[in-house]
Amino acid sequence: MNTNITDLKTVRLSQDGSAVIILDQTRLPGSEVYISLFSAEDVWDAIYKLKVRGAPAIGIAAAYGIYICSRLIAADTYDVFYREFLRVKDYLASSRPTAVNLIAALNRMEKVVTTHAEGSVPEIVQLLRAESEAIRTEDAAACRRIGENCLSLLRPGMGILTHCNAGHLAVSEYGTALAPVYLGEERGYGFKVFADETRPLLQGARLTAYELQKAGVDVTLICDNMASAVMRKGWVQAVVVGCDRVAANGDTANKIGTSGVAILARHYGIPFYVLGPTSTIDLNCPDGESIEIEERHPEEITDMWYASRMAPEGVKAYNPAFDVTPHDLITAIITEKGIAYPPFRMEDL
Amino acid sequence: MNTNITDLKTVRLSQDGSAVIILDQTRLPGSEVYISLFSAEDVWDAIYKLKVRGAPAIGIAAAYGIYICSRLIAADTYDVFYREFLRVKDYLASSRPTAVNLIAALNRMEKVVTTHAEGSVPEIVQLLRAESEAIRTEDAAACRRIGENCLSLLRPGMGILTHCNAGHLAVSEYGTALAPVYLGEERGYGFKVFADETRPLLQGARLTAYELQKAGVDVTLICDNMASAVMRKGWVQAVVVGCDRVAANGDTANKIGTSGVAILARHYGIPFYVLGPTSTIDLNCPDGESIEIEERHPEEITDMWYASRMAPEGVKAYNPAFDVTPHDLITAIITEKGIAYPPFRMEDL
Repeated sequence: MNTNITDLKTVRLSQDGSAVIILDQTRLPGSEVYISLFSAEDVWDAIYKLKVRGAPAIGIAAAYGIYICSRLIAADTYDVFYREFLRVKDYLASSRPTAVNLIAALNRMEKVVTTHAEGSVPEIVQLLRAESEAIRTEDAAACRRIGENCLSLLRPGMGILTHCNAGHLAVSEYGTALAPVYLGEERGYGFKVFADETRPLLQGARLTAYELQKAGVDVTLICDNMASAVMRKGWVQAVVVGCDRVAANGDTANKIGTSGVAILARHYGIPFYVLGPTSTIDLNCPDGESIEIEERHPEEITDMWYASRMAPEGVKAYNPAFDVTPHDLITAIITEKGIAYPPFRMEDL
Repeated sequence: MNTNITDLKTVRLSQDGSAVIILDQTRLPGSEVYISLFSAEDVWDAIYKLKVRGAPAIGIAAAYGIYICSRLIAADTYDVFYREFLRVKDYLASSRPTAVNLIAALNRMEKVVTTHAEGSVPEIVQLLRAESEAIRTEDAAACRRIGENCLSLLRPGMGILTHCNAGHLAVSEYGTALAPVYLGEERGYGFKVFADETRPLLQGARLTAYELQKAGVDVTLICDNMASAVMRKGWVQAVVVGCDRVAANGDTANKIGTSGVAILARHYGIPFYVLGPTSTIDLNCPDGESIEIEERHPEEITDMWYASRMAPEGVKAYNPAFDVTPHDLITAIITEKGIAYPPFRMEDL
């Protein structure tokens, strides 16, 4: 495996703790540009505009983000500090509604504040830095274990189809859905990966194809609507996707189009695997109907990325960013703790 | 219904018979530009580059095309004329392999030549003009009857999903898949149409959304991968698609992605209708496996239309232009002669 991929740092904290540094994913694959975020507005904008994206990476960016903002809070007392902390937290939480990791990371950061109400503000800020680093480290370790768990279900030479990007660029190091691909590549499995381009924002074309190619993995880019034809040809033996929120019953919200891929996989008798850290499971959410699905601007569909308009002026467009895959279409949900099969009891993980 | 739509002339013959005049569909929806084709090369290029597209429209363009070329053949004898005619015919037939209408129209034109071997060359040329006009007129009449037949299966207020473009721009006047939509609109059915954008060449975004909006039909553009989410919401009561070739057993080749939409429709219990003239049925083709599927340049996927590259340099891309929908996923095949239900016996139509 070409190791260049780990040179790409999806999201990190600057040495002095004043900035969140992210690889601007809206510029890929053309340019590798890192940008520094210094304020809550910078972080909100980067998450909303998908400069940093992928459920785990959003959580890490939000954790770092609220840490750098907490450093800037001018407060002598805990109450003043906490009030401002909550204001920033609510603001950052509003950047994208579907991924549970965003709010989970912010909640975890808040807990550091509330459990140290007796501490000084500088002490709390120092603890927030440590917690944000812990979130990142734990996610990276979880990804490797997710990869190991999934790899036990795969065989060398398999064709693997994935949708959107749940790789290195969505997390850190191995990614979630792509973790078994990278581990398999290290061990000579010779997977052949089909990457759905993933309209409207083309994360498959711009990010998955990019990072897999950089790592030397055999990857073929297809349009989303070609998945059926590729499966019919017998080229796909497994589907791996990430997840933005898994409900208690196993219903899974992920990038728009995921439920369609699951239906195709069921039709062609191909296993459909959902991969993600347990931090993506939301036990407060009983089922998929309870998951808020973000709707984004129609211009993402009607206007090509960086380019001219491709649909008539004034036409209506419906642009949900995610969809829900019902648990009965999912073969297994694979986390760092193990493999869950139907009936899914996510609370047991 | 706004009647502007019929102002758009998809393909026609110039008054003096020297040129095929087409609306350049690669320029839509931004510009309505008509171009004149004067040679076999012009016609081949226009078909290959999808300046004129849609199975029936390709057939009409090829018929007009071989007529204008036959006028230019410098031949005193039938044999010399016929030899040159066949050369042009084979050349035009190579422009796109999947749509049967192309070769069917050219065969029909050839038959005019061979059944008048005793006639003079100018007489034959005159008969070729009449035949090409007949192909166009018959297709237009067939479309209206296809629309009437399909409308008998639909109810006012239905949500209707379509893939690619099988409308006015694919034929003439009413189109095939969109014929019931236009007829319904005239009769106040108030259909709500969802148009798949249809990657890679975006015929849904550029053409279907354009012509329906122009006609005052309620149309909402979605990305191909959003069809499952829209169906899950209960917004779709019928799917209508065109066809490029229907095999004797009902297996249907149509724009890439059609088979995926059929699988989704089956999953959600939504009827899936294939609409086309009987000229699209190829009884020489026993089943879908026998249909040649055109593969096009990867750049159609990796490079955005008129825009910058959206996938990494050197990445592989698989780009089939069509796929085959097996007959068991098709609720009914609707032609100008009636409605065929499974088991499909296309030879009975």
